[in-house]
Amino acid sequence: MINKLVKEIKEKNAPIVVGLDPQMSFIPAKILGNAYSEFGETLKGASEAIFEFNKEIIDNVYDLIPAVKPQIAMYEEFGVEGIEAFRRTCEYAKKKGLIVIGDIKRGDIGSTSKAYAIAHLGKTKVGNKEYSLFNEDFVTVNPYLGIDGIKPFLEVAQEEKKGIFILCKTSNPSSGEFQDRIIDGKPLYEIVGEKINEWGKDHMGDSYSYVGAVIGATYPKMAEELRKVMPKAYILVPGYGAQGGIAKDLKPFFNEDGLGAIVNSSRGIIAAYKQEKYEKFGAENFGEASRAAVEDMLRDIRSIF
Amino acid sequence: MINKLVKEIKEKNAPIVVGLDPQMSFIPAKILGNAYSEFGETLKGASEAIFEFNKEIIDNVYDLIPAVKPQIAMYEEFGVEGIEAFRRTCEYAKKKGLIVIGDIKRGDIGSTSKAYAIAHLGKTKVGNKEYSLFNEDFVTVNPYLGIDGIKPFLEVAQEEKKGIFILCKTSNPSSGEFQDRIIDGKPLYEIVGEKINEWGKDHMGDSYSYVGAVIGATYPKMAEELRKVMPKAYILVPGYGAQGGIAKDLKPFFNEDGLGAIVNSSRGIIAAYKQEKYEKFGAENFGEASRAAVEDMLRDIRSIF
Repeated sequence: MINKLVKEIKEKNAPIVVGLDPQMSFIPAKILGNAYSEFGETLKGASEAIFEFNKEIIDNVYDLIPAVKPQIAMYEEFGVEGIEAFRRTCEYAKKKGLIVIGDIKRGDIGSTSKAYAIAHLGKTKVGNKEYSLFNEDFVTVNPYLGIDGIKPFLEVAQEEKKGIFILCKTSNPSSGEFQDRIIDGKPLYEIVGEKINEWGKDHMGDSYSYVGAVIGATYPKMAEELRKVMPKAYILVPGYGAQGGIAKDLKPFFNEDGLGAIVNSSRGIIAAYKQEKYEKFGAENFGEASRAAVEDMLRDIRSIF
Repeated sequence: MINKLVKEIKEKNAPIVVGLDPQMSFIPAKILGNAYSEFGETLKGASEAIFEFNKEIIDNVYDLIPAVKPQIAMYEEFGVEGIEAFRRTCEYAKKKGLIVIGDIKRGDIGSTSKAYAIAHLGKTKVGNKEYSLFNEDFVTVNPYLGIDGIKPFLEVAQEEKKGIFILCKTSNPSSGEFQDRIIDGKPLYEIVGEKINEWGKDHMGDSYSYVGAVIGATYPKMAEELRKVMPKAYILVPGYGAQGGIAKDLKPFFNEDGLGAIVNSSRGIIAAYKQEKYEKFGAENFGEASRAAVEDMLRDIRSIF
């Protein structure tokens, strides 16, 4: 799957991923109204609205981008029905040829981590039957528990030819609280980066490993160091746009081959119609506003090469 | 809710929690057969079997214990239907008067962490309506992202009078990979422990904070240090029994008041009927085997005081 990701990024000349992190306030009144009139002001109604919102965005941008990244928290907020909207979103995106990065940030130990890995990347067994459930292509994983938490994901990823992105230096302001603390002269995020590099060596695609890393766009200097520490890891870069990361800061995330990083934007794309710049589209045409925002993001990111 | 937890632990003289981490291999053939004959070898069938298995265990042990700790990964493995079994398990346990600790190990940033906090501890808004979804009393949270990831949980916990347990020193063999690394002369888990203590000060119940910590039974010496670092944090202790922790090692997790820790056992209780010691009960009476295992665990743990 890392080979497919690299191929799609090259073919579309688009090292970007659209984050499908819907909030109710992003969803235009018409979509909400339709869903509520069918299912009432219920969890099912909210979930239907979320799915229809995502579908419209996917339909408008799928030919421009290699991948989408649904953030499961925004779905889990609506309980079982929300999780069903997450599942449908993953399924629909794949049907449109997109690679799906499940932003799930799971991490536990042994059989527990294995259960998450099976649910999201693998196949669940019931009696003699097997089910691919959420069926993402990549997921994000939290490293705090060490290799015990990572290994089950590596095993399932290897079997299914899929991949993972391990949290390394996250984009949020307080990410340094633990991640920047110095251990033997190096920050913790670098120690984690060394491990990602080490674990990734046994899990190589053609040119990149399918063990990648998450490093926030908001920390370009750290990305420069980390790029050297783990040259074969693909870097998933959140924090561009709404969180303050700008294009010229993204250069150090990439290798000299122009590859090695994929930049995420969520609300900057999916809620584009709410920005002054795109308000001419109107709420009715929010999908077209998202397409325009993707085109602008692509221009912005291509300008750094 | 921390006050209620302390009260129940005292009244039942039972500083223990039963981990509801069902695996298909734990579920007796009769329960599986009933569920499959009603729903087929489907995800719904598996989820029904999981719920009925949990229900039988809860019915047999609820009067002896203050709390249960369902591990969401084991449910997520069965997708949307599995998450419904998790929800039903939480609901049923609460109906029987038990405190529910959702072992979800979530952790993200800002609005994303908020979405998890709302789903599990708070109320989800849809239009003018509010829904308590999974409605756990406590959840476990991963600290790797720093206070940005914790704060939304603290806010919701405060509003709802609930609580959290933050991963500090986990029970697994490789937990030291990052957690034991030395920062300014102290291991990372101690730095995390200091933060748990600091964050917990603004979130006090009557005698303990509702910001607790997870420390594995497999690391009693570290628990001794950490007990001093965060005297007011309740410690959730996994790793007793199946993972190798034994009762005499549990002393350092408790304060001198005999409180401050709650010890989890999962498969040691829920799959007790599979052990030689309890096989006389037979698979038919697995609930009674679990009750006997709880009674033995209580005797074992009470012996340390």
